[in-house]
Amino acid sequence: MSTAQESTSTAQESTVPERVRAARVALGSVVEPGNRTLHFLVEQCGPQEALRRLAAGDTADALSAAARSRLGSHDPWTAALRLMAHADRLGVRLVVPEDPEWPRGLSDLSAISVDGRDRVDRDTYPPQCLWVRGPHRLDEATDRSVSVIGARANTHYGGHIAAELGYGLADRGWTVISGGAYGIDAAAHRGALAAGGLTIAVLACGVDRPYPPSNSALFERVAEEGLLISELPPGSDPHRHRFLVRNRVIAALSRGTVLVEASARSGARQTMRRARQLRRLAMAVPGPVTSTASVGCHEELREHPHAVALVTGVEQVLELVGRVGVDLAPRPRGPVQDHDGLDSLDQQLFDAVPLRGVASAAAVAAQAGVSLRDALGRLPSLALRGLLTEQSGGWARPTARRAAARAAPIR
Amino acid sequence: MSTAQESTSTAQESTVPERVRAARVALGSVVEPGNRTLHFLVEQCGPQEALRRLAAGDTADALSAAARSRLGSHDPWTAALRLMAHADRLGVRLVVPEDPEWPRGLSDLSAISVDGRDRVDRDTYPPQCLWVRGPHRLDEATDRSVSVIGARANTHYGGHIAAELGYGLADRGWTVISGGAYGIDAAAHRGALAAGGLTIAVLACGVDRPYPPSNSALFERVAEEGLLISELPPGSDPHRHRFLVRNRVIAALSRGTVLVEASARSGARQTMRRARQLRRLAMAVPGPVTSTASVGCHEELREHPHAVALVTGVEQVLELVGRVGVDLAPRPRGPVQDHDGLDSLDQQLFDAVPLRGVASAAAVAAQAGVSLRDALGRLPSLALRGLLTEQSGGWARPTARRAAARAAPIR
Repeated sequence: MSTAQESTSTAQESTVPERVRAARVALGSVVEPGNRTLHFLVEQCGPQEALRRLAAGDTADALSAAARSRLGSHDPWTAALRLMAHADRLGVRLVVPEDPEWPRGLSDLSAISVDGRDRVDRDTYPPQCLWVRGPHRLDEATDRSVSVIGARANTHYGGHIAAELGYGLADRGWTVISGGAYGIDAAAHRGALAAGGLTIAVLACGVDRPYPPSNSALFERVAEEGLLISELPPGSDPHRHRFLVRNRVIAALSRGTVLVEASARSGARQTMRRARQLRRLAMAVPGPVTSTASVGCHEELREHPHAVALVTGVEQVLELVGRVGVDLAPRPRGPVQDHDGLDSLDQQLFDAVPLRGVASAAAVAAQAGVSLRDALGRLPSLALRGLLTEQSGGWARPTARRAAARAAPIR
Repeated sequence: MSTAQESTSTAQESTVPERVRAARVALGSVVEPGNRTLHFLVEQCGPQEALRRLAAGDTADALSAAARSRLGSHDPWTAALRLMAHADRLGVRLVVPEDPEWPRGLSDLSAISVDGRDRVDRDTYPPQCLWVRGPHRLDEATDRSVSVIGARANTHYGGHIAAELGYGLADRGWTVISGGAYGIDAAAHRGALAAGGLTIAVLACGVDRPYPPSNSALFERVAEEGLLISELPPGSDPHRHRFLVRNRVIAALSRGTVLVEASARSGARQTMRRARQLRRLAMAVPGPVTSTASVGCHEELREHPHAVALVTGVEQVLELVGRVGVDLAPRPRGPVQDHDGLDSLDQQLFDAVPLRGVASAAAVAAQAGVSLRDALGRLPSLALRGLLTEQSGGWARPTARRAAARAAPIR
């Protein structure tokens, strides 16, 4: 143990017991990311006991079988401590949910497992840990952040827009999150770096071998000036499945996700779906209808007119993300509220929605002293910004995220 | 009178009394289009008595003064009959609201006068008559029609899209309505003509001197194969004001309006506003966010996400307009219903909304036997298609248009 404790001493602020950290590492190494059964096991009995049961074969059959096939004859604790020491030598930090710098937004992932009546997305649960390269605290770096994503096969137009968005967001102090892929992702990262800003690449492989290799110069700059992060341990290979699972982290870390270019069936649309499910802002940039690279953006806007906002530039992105999501990472200074920055009519309407229960649009209008027409015209945009929710009986304040997570139906 | 009666004999089917037709012509000639006071005067006492009172100075001061300054010392009846004879010599037909071929959709215009709490659009009332060149009945030509509009200063991209839409709509038997202007309008008309289809140019001047003159070859083809129409009598000049007032006719005649390209402050956006007010389908084609010619389209989509649909091609336009608005012109054959063509889940939801009153989404879901999630996901799209309306208490069938017109508050 002493070796392992020394090996993680670079995570200076961590007061999390070494056994907890090692258990998280082991759980994150022997089970694929986002696993549902593992998530509830850890919720129920904590990471150490969860690992003990898993190693003992004392859990759901499928989970144990998968874990044991990966463990082989190795002791999971020993393997975890060895991995932590190896990461430390590579300059890779370990951050676990028990750490103060763990991004709070990731816990929202436990609320989106059920999608539709009978379909369950099983692999949407929060990471067990994150492996990090770069000189920033994760919570601070993701506090004011926007994900800018899109297709690998971009057009000149899409690359230009992604770089402009990356630059503009970073230039105004926002962190730009993306997936480090060729095309739109790389353009967004580069734009942010060009502005001297902070950018985060969330990888679907180990942070010691970022993929694709052709972006290696970019990854080095991101690791020096921003952050390279992954829930997969150092040494992990990228698999197709892992990109899709990784996408939930890109969506959950930021206040909103902007889709710049995507084909109809692009994986980037799955990140948009996660953003919508997480009630983050989902935004899409339109393009020429003659370009197949914009079809995915147009489809997002067409299929989800109430949930995806059309944006044409950085100002419009900031107008949306600047207003919501401040609860994702509490500001140290003073009582900043979600609804700061609303104009007076919006503010009246927001204030007129009761703190508990549901009010009809007519009741909200009467309470706010505005016309029903104005109320009906503006309430949906407050909902789009996440400040209100529309329910069958009318309008309500959104349920606190943790309550929503608890209340989410589990099948 | 006998000369005048002979002169209008080309309007073969008209059984409308000559005095009524002449009164409509006089009213449409001495008062600017869409006038509110005149509309209610005619509603109250009919066109003949309205003209008598107007000529006698026996009406609201402003209206009489304006009319008398135009009439001068002329007798309005004589002037009208002379105008009708003149039009007949030019090959221009007269169609009045009392004629069977009068497009029923125009009467919806009397329902949109009030816009917002205290603002009144005074000039949105239906035309007194229409002057027509071309070999088609107005009601039949506009039955299945789509307006395709946009900026005069189009880009190559916009011109291409407008021509493609015009061609595709006409090729599938739909009439293409536009304003005959340079740019997007002309491209849409030309596309329809290229498909051998029917196109209608709604002018803001007399149909004998279509504006702009540089489109004269186009206008001649439209008059031969389609229709040139105007509510302004032959000889009228185009004025800036008249283009804006004319736009309400473009919006009202068709089932939906597609905005192809427009600057932020383009007059074409006013046509979109009219389409929204009339509960016609309002559609916009996106374009590169780097193009100022697409800013108006993007703003429409951003400002009215619930009322303006993003479309990228003719199939998407047809998917929307093919489903709604069949009540604008009743089909002779059988009971075609608004909601034909819905998939089974949509149909269940539609059927579950009561014919009278309002039902909550939960009640609709229960009645339809679908999940609340599915109901909440699909009801808004039924509303977007005009099949349902969302109200403070939930969801309802749309009020019949005539009832809406009667119930519209008048200030």
